[in-house]
Amino acid sequence: MNDTTNARTGTVTLLSAGPGDLDLLTLKAAKALARAGIVLLDDLVNPEIATLAPQARIIRVGKRGGCRSTPQAFIERLMVRYARKGHDVVRVKGGDALLFGRAGEELAALHRAGVPFEIVNGVSSAFAAAAGLGVSLTHRDHCQGVIFVTAHLRDHSEPDWPALAATRMTLAIYMGMSRIEGLCATLAQTLSRQTPAAVVQWAGSAQERRVMGTLGNIAALAQAAGLGSPAIILVGDAIGEAISLDSFDAHATTLPVLRRA
Amino acid sequence: MNDTTNARTGTVTLLSAGPGDLDLLTLKAAKALARAGIVLLDDLVNPEIATLAPQARIIRVGKRGGCRSTPQAFIERLMVRYARKGHDVVRVKGGDALLFGRAGEELAALHRAGVPFEIVNGVSSAFAAAAGLGVSLTHRDHCQGVIFVTAHLRDHSEPDWPALAATRMTLAIYMGMSRIEGLCATLAQTLSRQTPAAVVQWAGSAQERRVMGTLGNIAALAQAAGLGSPAIILVGDAIGEAISLDSFDAHATTLPVLRRA
Repeated sequence: MNDTTNARTGTVTLLSAGPGDLDLLTLKAAKALARAGIVLLDDLVNPEIATLAPQARIIRVGKRGGCRSTPQAFIERLMVRYARKGHDVVRVKGGDALLFGRAGEELAALHRAGVPFEIVNGVSSAFAAAAGLGVSLTHRDHCQGVIFVTAHLRDHSEPDWPALAATRMTLAIYMGMSRIEGLCATLAQTLSRQTPAAVVQWAGSAQERRVMGTLGNIAALAQAAGLGSPAIILVGDAIGEAISLDSFDAHATTLPVLRRA
Repeated sequence: MNDTTNARTGTVTLLSAGPGDLDLLTLKAAKALARAGIVLLDDLVNPEIATLAPQARIIRVGKRGGCRSTPQAFIERLMVRYARKGHDVVRVKGGDALLFGRAGEELAALHRAGVPFEIVNGVSSAFAAAAGLGVSLTHRDHCQGVIFVTAHLRDHSEPDWPALAATRMTLAIYMGMSRIEGLCATLAQTLSRQTPAAVVQWAGSAQERRVMGTLGNIAALAQAAGLGSPAIILVGDAIGEAISLDSFDAHATTLPVLRRA
């Protein structure tokens, strides 16, 4: 008998870390971290989250661009291996674990391996971006909903921007900063260049920075302000109702608040 | 001088209560409730949230269909009046305050009145619905994003279902149960009737119930199971990856888990 077969199987918790501010974790997430034995941590997650898991071994498994990344398959094997050794594993993902971020593949791997799992939801960064701007994502004067879309596709193609624009809904674009100029130009073939738009970098964290403009000028404004990844690009008439730029700002003492162009 | 001018102006916190389970509140929300003087509570919010606000006067301001509802304008006046009297007001909204639910109008009212505000994000119920099903909203094998749309429009018209279907993204439909049959039929003019679909009632609460099927049969399955509002309707190929129905279910001991048709 080896140490694997002697132990009970642990569980894996796919845990949503929210946008950065540790206070935006859920109570359920804090409790899961407090009892965690192993924590697998993504790159974009605030590393201070480790302070909430005092008993845990912290393993960084970031996958960001290029060197020193951890392949997805290896992360999945790690989760299964530690659970089979009897550890309660917390797999921490930024934002909400079920929006982008390959939770589907990790859930399938756990399912195949027969490892019990739990999912703890959280705050996705587009919500935090809207909070920073003081704006509803779906002001009913302007739209019936919001589209969360990633600009970073598996096959390096583009989302169908004209189809998205045709819905006339608010667009919350994730991972779009490397192609913001092109995607705004494409959207402007369907939407007015005067459509309100904003970029919020590090939304919901102490490093939050934002700029407000229009579909026609937001790429240039973001570049001029030095905003880059990770950021949310928001486009749509509802975003024009943003009021934080003009008035109250909870973070005004520490954050550069960029005024409407 | 009256009591209004003597006092400092309080703040209003637009607070996201999440989908129901109090453990899905953020740490930030729990802290805001702990120090609240006045709490304005929507109908769909778990009333046990009052236990987190021991110092507060709790005022119910539900707006659900028909009788005994509180008009939106009156809610806005209440917030402003209490803040001007120096109270720290917490306005509690279900899910995330910035998705549907008229936060835009409330923020504008506070802005006009010069009342400082803060927004505390939370978990919207579509995320909780996905967690219950054990599925990513955006499995990258199937789509590039997800659309959050309300079927309940101000002017009693319908969202542009063909335009939404044309995006080939996951649809998370809020407030659609009263017209589920018609909206599924309309979507089936663009999407295959075999497209996976699910209904999750009271997602993320102790009362959660769910049914899984296809665009062609989900309305009948939900009706047969007695599922009604409030519920999330999920449609899209990504939803076909749901695994909770077939295997592990955290709530299996207390919830009726309805099997795939």
